Amino acid sequence: MSSLDPSQSSTDDPLDFGVGARITISVMSSDYINIILGALSKVPKSDLLIETGDVSTYIQGPESSILTYLTDLSSLIASSPTHSSIIIHLFRGCPGSTSCAKPGPRNSPNPTGRKTNQFVTAEWALYPLSDGQDGGDHMKEIYEAIDFAKEGGAYKGSKGSVTRLEGDLGVVLECVVRGWVGVGRKVQHVTSHLTISVNSPSHAGRVIEG
Amino acid sequence: MSSLDPSQSSTDDPLDFGVGARITISVMSSDYINIILGALSKVPKSDLLIETGDVSTYIQGPESSILTYLTDLSSLIASSPTHSSIIIHLFRGCPGSTSCAKPGPRNSPNPTGRKTNQFVTAEWALYPLSDGQDGGDHMKEIYEAIDFAKEGGAYKGSKGSVTRLEGDLGVVLECVVRGWVGVGRKVQHVTSHLTISVNSPSHAGRVIEG
Repeated sequence: MSSLDPSQSSTDDPLDFGVGARITISVMSSDYINIILGALSKVPKSDLLIETGDVSTYIQGPESSILTYLTDLSSLIASSPTHSSIIIHLFRGCPGSTSCAKPGPRNSPNPTGRKTNQFVTAEWALYPLSDGQDGGDHMKEIYEAIDFAKEGGAYKGSKGSVTRLEGDLGVVLECVVRGWVGVGRKVQHVTSHLTISVNSPSHAGRVIEG
Repeated sequence: MSSLDPSQSSTDDPLDFGVGARITISVMSSDYINIILGALSKVPKSDLLIETGDVSTYIQGPESSILTYLTDLSSLIASSPTHSSIIIHLFRGCPGSTSCAKPGPRNSPNPTGRKTNQFVTAEWALYPLSDGQDGGDHMKEIYEAIDFAKEGGAYKGSKGSVTRLEGDLGVVLECVVRGWVGVGRKVQHVTSHLTISVNSPSHAGRVIEG
């Protein structure tokens, strides 16, 4: 058993549940190394375990800390202000398997994000796995995630296996992390993939309203 | 019903099965627009429907044509020779749902790739959905996909919800597309996500052996 906080019981420990995220940042500038490493060095790690690799940065810890970290890091990249893509992969459960010794569904509170006032467009997929043993009622949580995206104004329809999100970077991230946490209350193994485009020349000068 | 080839029956038509892919290319150079649009304009579209968006390019058609297109496009980007990330999302079935009117499992032949002699590193996830109605025997196909990656020399272990692949760009793509097609023979809804890093400064001068 691993532990990030001695006060947590083993069943609360996010590492026991396989809670984690991966982020891949691509900055479309020849100065990409300085921009990416500069942002990574500035963001507080909080109670997270962070391992930077050549394909992605691997993050482990509580869902609320993951949302804060992803928001802080993505916001720094978006303020660069170079066109960049940010790829986020959220997961919990057993990599490569739908049956393992990890605990079952996890009751995490909904994490709260923060607005960054940076306009982004994004494509989102949310996958509940292990349907068989969980009764297949996960669609309720998916619809709740989509409803939350609609309430926040980020939802822009679904097409070709993804849901399109647009709007404030922080609102998009909160919506996606909440959807992942919500489905995780019903199924053991849940993953989500998000592709974010920031500072796209297709949306030059676009600002957040409201 | 849509049709790409009049000789195909409705149950063979990849569009009836929701077969598709998305690709997001990020070139880490201020000349990224010319490099990406130049590559997109040079690759033959074959019998594919292709729609370029601000987050990804959406590709629909037969699996073998999708593999050829992804290989040709990624290889052109890798020859640029700028450091780039290539994000690929493969899917078939119903976007946003695990129960819909689409046909069930699809018997597609294994598509064949081609070596490009370009070294890449990558992280791969493969998701069979709709376990409940399919008896949950999809793990056999996942293990077959991993065995195929091992035989081709691309498999480098699993960690944090992804399988790491390394080696020839074309071999990595063939392995991932074959895994997706293989799982699709057992389950209606299957998706796969791949993050590829090309021309990484972490692997400067690395060449393909053999």
